[in-house]
Amino acid sequence: MPSIVERGPVIVAVSSGGKSPVLARLLRARLETLIPAGYGRLAFLAAEFRDKVKARFAFAERRRFWERTLQGPIAELVFSGRDDEARRAMQESLDDTRIGFSGGEVSLIGAGPGDPDLLTFRALRLMQQADVVVYDRLVSKPVLDLVRRDAEFIYAGKERAMHSLPQDDINHLLVRLAKEGKRVVRLKGGDPFIFGRGGEEIDTLAAEGIPFQVVPGITAASGCAVYAGIPLTHRDHSQAVIFVTGHLKDGSMDLNWPALAQPHQTVVFYMALLGTEILCRELIANGLPAATPAALVQQGTMPEQRVLVGTLETLPEILRVSDVKAPTLIIIGEVVKLRERLKWFEAAA
Amino acid sequence: MPSIVERGPVIVAVSSGGKSPVLARLLRARLETLIPAGYGRLAFLAAEFRDKVKARFAFAERRRFWERTLQGPIAELVFSGRDDEARRAMQESLDDTRIGFSGGEVSLIGAGPGDPDLLTFRALRLMQQADVVVYDRLVSKPVLDLVRRDAEFIYAGKERAMHSLPQDDINHLLVRLAKEGKRVVRLKGGDPFIFGRGGEEIDTLAAEGIPFQVVPGITAASGCAVYAGIPLTHRDHSQAVIFVTGHLKDGSMDLNWPALAQPHQTVVFYMALLGTEILCRELIANGLPAATPAALVQQGTMPEQRVLVGTLETLPEILRVSDVKAPTLIIIGEVVKLRERLKWFEAAA
Repeated sequence: MPSIVERGPVIVAVSSGGKSPVLARLLRARLETLIPAGYGRLAFLAAEFRDKVKARFAFAERRRFWERTLQGPIAELVFSGRDDEARRAMQESLDDTRIGFSGGEVSLIGAGPGDPDLLTFRALRLMQQADVVVYDRLVSKPVLDLVRRDAEFIYAGKERAMHSLPQDDINHLLVRLAKEGKRVVRLKGGDPFIFGRGGEEIDTLAAEGIPFQVVPGITAASGCAVYAGIPLTHRDHSQAVIFVTGHLKDGSMDLNWPALAQPHQTVVFYMALLGTEILCRELIANGLPAATPAALVQQGTMPEQRVLVGTLETLPEILRVSDVKAPTLIIIGEVVKLRERLKWFEAAA
Repeated sequence: MPSIVERGPVIVAVSSGGKSPVLARLLRARLETLIPAGYGRLAFLAAEFRDKVKARFAFAERRRFWERTLQGPIAELVFSGRDDEARRAMQESLDDTRIGFSGGEVSLIGAGPGDPDLLTFRALRLMQQADVVVYDRLVSKPVLDLVRRDAEFIYAGKERAMHSLPQDDINHLLVRLAKEGKRVVRLKGGDPFIFGRGGEEIDTLAAEGIPFQVVPGITAASGCAVYAGIPLTHRDHSQAVIFVTGHLKDGSMDLNWPALAQPHQTVVFYMALLGTEILCRELIANGLPAATPAALVQQGTMPEQRVLVGTLETLPEILRVSDVKAPTLIIIGEVVKLRERLKWFEAAA
């Protein structure tokens, strides 16, 4: 007998073909939470407008109208119990001859540190509605696999790589795709507003009047710290945390070293693998004890995660004898010591 | 005719009762992505072990065994295509007379900044398996609504509130609940390792030998920045971002002001509403220009979000004439100016 999730006229039935009733029951329980309570009311509202929508739009536009209405802000109004407002908004959308539904839009989405389980619901929903996805090198394969299958995939690379698009070209590519009427997903590793150059990309969109939205993602520092068992702040050790990039420019790093070499704070370096030796030297030269704990987290949150722990003094040597590859994050501060007691991810694997 | 998601013997059928075929199709497409491709193989594996499990465990333990197996690491092995390893692990679990399945465990989960759409998949899955949830004041109501309905709910308050548990009591509560064999979810606003005191809570668990895992969440700085249209870093304005708490102690703030008052960085203050005047004054006294842009984000990411923008000089006065309530985040730096062009969330509402 199948398990049922009921939302008014909307029925979802789950069966395991008798193979595992517990599995069917667990899946039903998950769906119970994943399908908003207002789904039934949304179905009734859609039915109410069905004839009007049919009269107003040709087939392709109709599909577009419903996809927007039943997944967008109007659906959200119903889910939050504001059915009258939803009904008015639906009517307004129908009456609006100005825009039609040919306008594209861009969603700038943070894909998180790699583990697809750390995607947000909002990210996934937009990824599933995409006509085209423009993605970076740092977006993991398991995350990409969750994009709508018949979307067009465009690889934008990474600014430092040889075969990648310059930032300006990416900005204009997004504008062009949106102007073609496409629902564009711009997918970036981590969080788009923390070293993601997201500000630059949407600046071009804003200037061109393209509708856009932004979805925050788990930034690498947060994901890697948690999966490495290193709290970034801790009442006994660190009252602040600072994120910086360690990109090399002409073999050196132009950073505010005195501000970074302060006690009672944690410093996280993004993209600093090649500069490890320099940053350890500079932090010591600017006053941090050579024995300050330091950790290197490679492919954090992924099954392949590796964590190497040392001090500002020993980290460069550790790096020399280990085969460490990007993406790698460096965490520096007393909190690194806590990993010894708090690590849980590798222990579980 | 219902839409079908097929995973071997597992069948999920979606129908809208004829009210909205598009809605049924969209829901089916969502489920297609939400239900892992390996589900069918998991059902077959469960069927393979069904008789053995029945012979080995009494009813309650059996339920527990399957819930763990079909949602835990063994299921993950199947989903990632490692069926043979999964089969071995299943057999080992069955043979393991030592542990049984009475041991509890704690999941320390970051609930993000408020919008339930910003929960991660991993967070939701664990919330749906919880026997008991211990939650803070900063966890939003819509997020709490997603916890398994028949879980026990325990309010732990917030350290500064009157009617809340001291941190030590929370630590020991988690230990006690886990020792009772419960699947405990410890739910915190934002990210547990960024001003969440997560390190302290799992330290007690580690000392007591309780199994635990940690789930990162979107930290308030990241969520509020994105929904306010303020990139935390930007190649032209800010090469670093620093997070600090602005808790008042005896009416003052014990912070490293010279390190915070640096150019080309963004400073984000958590929980600093009451200290706004002090922090603006100190940052100016330590060298930041009085005209440095500053923003106050109240209830960031929620429909009620409010953003007030000024400068280090004007922010205290803005606060005096506005009715601002916690939770509120303060963002300081040149990047705040970008909001004027980049804000999208309020524009869409």
